[in-house]
Amino acid sequence: MQAVVITIGDEILNGTTVDTNSAFLGKELALLGIQLREKVSISDTDHHIRGSLHRYMGHTDLIIMTGGLGPTLDDKTKQTLCSYFNTELVFNATVFKFIENRFAQRGLKMTERNRQQAFLPATCTVVPNTMGTASGMWFERDGTVLVSLPGVPYEMKHIYRSELVERFRKHFALPVIENYYIMTSGIGESWLADQIEEIETSLPLDVRLAYLPSPGIVKLRLTGRGNEQKKVAMRVSVWAQQIELRLGSHVFANENISLQEAVGRRLLALQATLSLAESCTGGNIGRLITQIPGSSAYFLGSVISYDNSVKERLLGVDPDILSTHGAVSEETVAAMLDGVLDLIGTDYAIAVSGVAGPGGGTEDKPVGTVYIGVSGRGTRRIQRYNFAQDRAVNIEYSSMYALHMLRVLLDEHLEKQELKG
Amino acid sequence: MQAVVITIGDEILNGTTVDTNSAFLGKELALLGIQLREKVSISDTDHHIRGSLHRYMGHTDLIIMTGGLGPTLDDKTKQTLCSYFNTELVFNATVFKFIENRFAQRGLKMTERNRQQAFLPATCTVVPNTMGTASGMWFERDGTVLVSLPGVPYEMKHIYRSELVERFRKHFALPVIENYYIMTSGIGESWLADQIEEIETSLPLDVRLAYLPSPGIVKLRLTGRGNEQKKVAMRVSVWAQQIELRLGSHVFANENISLQEAVGRRLLALQATLSLAESCTGGNIGRLITQIPGSSAYFLGSVISYDNSVKERLLGVDPDILSTHGAVSEETVAAMLDGVLDLIGTDYAIAVSGVAGPGGGTEDKPVGTVYIGVSGRGTRRIQRYNFAQDRAVNIEYSSMYALHMLRVLLDEHLEKQELKG
Repeated sequence: MQAVVITIGDEILNGTTVDTNSAFLGKELALLGIQLREKVSISDTDHHIRGSLHRYMGHTDLIIMTGGLGPTLDDKTKQTLCSYFNTELVFNATVFKFIENRFAQRGLKMTERNRQQAFLPATCTVVPNTMGTASGMWFERDGTVLVSLPGVPYEMKHIYRSELVERFRKHFALPVIENYYIMTSGIGESWLADQIEEIETSLPLDVRLAYLPSPGIVKLRLTGRGNEQKKVAMRVSVWAQQIELRLGSHVFANENISLQEAVGRRLLALQATLSLAESCTGGNIGRLITQIPGSSAYFLGSVISYDNSVKERLLGVDPDILSTHGAVSEETVAAMLDGVLDLIGTDYAIAVSGVAGPGGGTEDKPVGTVYIGVSGRGTRRIQRYNFAQDRAVNIEYSSMYALHMLRVLLDEHLEKQELKG
Repeated sequence: MQAVVITIGDEILNGTTVDTNSAFLGKELALLGIQLREKVSISDTDHHIRGSLHRYMGHTDLIIMTGGLGPTLDDKTKQTLCSYFNTELVFNATVFKFIENRFAQRGLKMTERNRQQAFLPATCTVVPNTMGTASGMWFERDGTVLVSLPGVPYEMKHIYRSELVERFRKHFALPVIENYYIMTSGIGESWLADQIEEIETSLPLDVRLAYLPSPGIVKLRLTGRGNEQKKVAMRVSVWAQQIELRLGSHVFANENISLQEAVGRRLLALQATLSLAESCTGGNIGRLITQIPGSSAYFLGSVISYDNSVKERLLGVDPDILSTHGAVSEETVAAMLDGVLDLIGTDYAIAVSGVAGPGGGTEDKPVGTVYIGVSGRGTRRIQRYNFAQDRAVNIEYSSMYALHMLRVLLDEHLEKQELKG
């Protein structure tokens, strides 16, 4: 069971609009067990729309098209579909009434352009759009279902969820799909792949493994496929557990959550609070932590000590340490940790100081050199890293490794607590 | 001159990753005068990669492929390209040395998988990647240039900018394109369009205007096209100046820079320093300001006072103010401004306190209510906003409007300084 998504519009091709419609459809179709074979973005011209129909009709089970259904002159999809399917536009009284009501409710006058939206191809099944004036259209030919939807994301999503999911389930014989996520932090993709190579090569055909890496994080996704929900879920989780066992403490979650959310959950479990002393990351760690709704339960605040004067005066870093060892040093980060724990009065703290670049590097401490420290409840750890990337990426890596180090410390403390309890 | 972008990876098709690479490439190619005809995302299999090569090779001037070049077993692109172009992988000593150095610098051990990254197709031109271990590859056949790039966005972007722009200019006969950016902050797109409607409708065919809105910012881009650099640049700037005159103080730059960079330049011109007191933005304003290399010249640091205890103890906000007016109030933001100016000792400060959501809203102060204040050199301004969006968007808007308010204040102070000087 394979599908193709075609998104129509010059604004997608020239990068003015990031195409989120096809990401949505890819995700939703996967949940139904429909594999997206290809997605393609094309210009809103008769020539290109016709070319894409020619390419895919009869060669895939399902095509979803989005866009090109607006009331303006530059929207050509409906006309092209009519001519491709050898049919003509006919007046649809139900759709007309709906549009009329919609305008009346808002106290707006209906124009001729809006009236045109009620003319739809005679041979299609109309898929109602209760959020806008452009209806969806369902065609069938050569063993392919073609659904054409408006490009406005919330209209498209609403039609998909309210009308299409059930129609697809009925029309196609769909398999059961189960996804299982294994989230790891602080290790590279290659190292990880080496660790689980044996397991990966023994995976059966109906269970697939994907590596989804981002700075500091590798997300593993196991996808199982079959006929019975329970059986598939069981089969996937058996393989997932083997991988989790092999990876041990590198795993921070077995669901698709961010590292900052995982850190937040651990702080809640420990009934502990957190503060930060950020230098080169400039506020980015605070931003990540406060992305999580409810983070105010454990995150009290932080000091961004970008200038040494702030390190000295707010965090109490000894000027002698700064002059002897420099701002980017283990000693400074140790003093920042002690300072912020004392100042804000939290259970745990993170401190970061480094050379983000492009300037400021030395032979001893080139651009990308970052000291990251975590401290709390009797343990303090400081680690030197060199990320050797550009400014933005060094900041991103520093932030993720800081969260990683805290996560590891919190896991150890949670384990201790459980042993006691 | 037409191009096709092919992005490779199941994570794009199943919606796990939103494909921002092709939006970036569409935008960048348009700036060079290369029109993106189609973009397509396919699965990382020999069959699909080969099928897309078969479809586009010889039928377009340029194909850019991204993704599928990682060191793991599921990355098939390099092998497929070898077999398609009838060549074989050969050891590249330069690339090997680079990878080896990279690992040595980080104190990491190189694995056999990493070593494989130095094997590249014999007939391609290697396009160096200084940000990672997967090199770019340039092939030519049947009148089509095919460039294969890694899928990691920052690696891909870096290779594009540092290596490909110049190669494309040389290889293809590209028309002269001149872009002129007019950056505005704090006003909406519709209002802006009304102001410049007359000018817009008089634009000649070889000068095009694009509106590129993002939270708090509308970027206008005028694009001229022709044969002679100087003539095109002149023609575009004449129209740009008309628009700038009409928009007056809403314009913060006439080049494509961020609002935080514009703020930084003004602080440098005023020889002034900045500190922040962030509550609901959680560090995001600090992150934005420190994205700019050299920001340490004016940004000293900040206090993220997420919890009221930090507002009281570090910023000296009177507990009576917090209990009478609440943390989200003009009075609290005024006290945060005074507190941080005094604590860090800067010329200017920003303070923000609001309800980011989803929880915490009240009838008086629903989710999205944010007080933003700026203060410095004798002026203090506080404004109430309601952005009424979800958490992430409220934080983004709050940050951009805070930078906007500071920018306006700095502009007024710069004007005063010039009048005096």
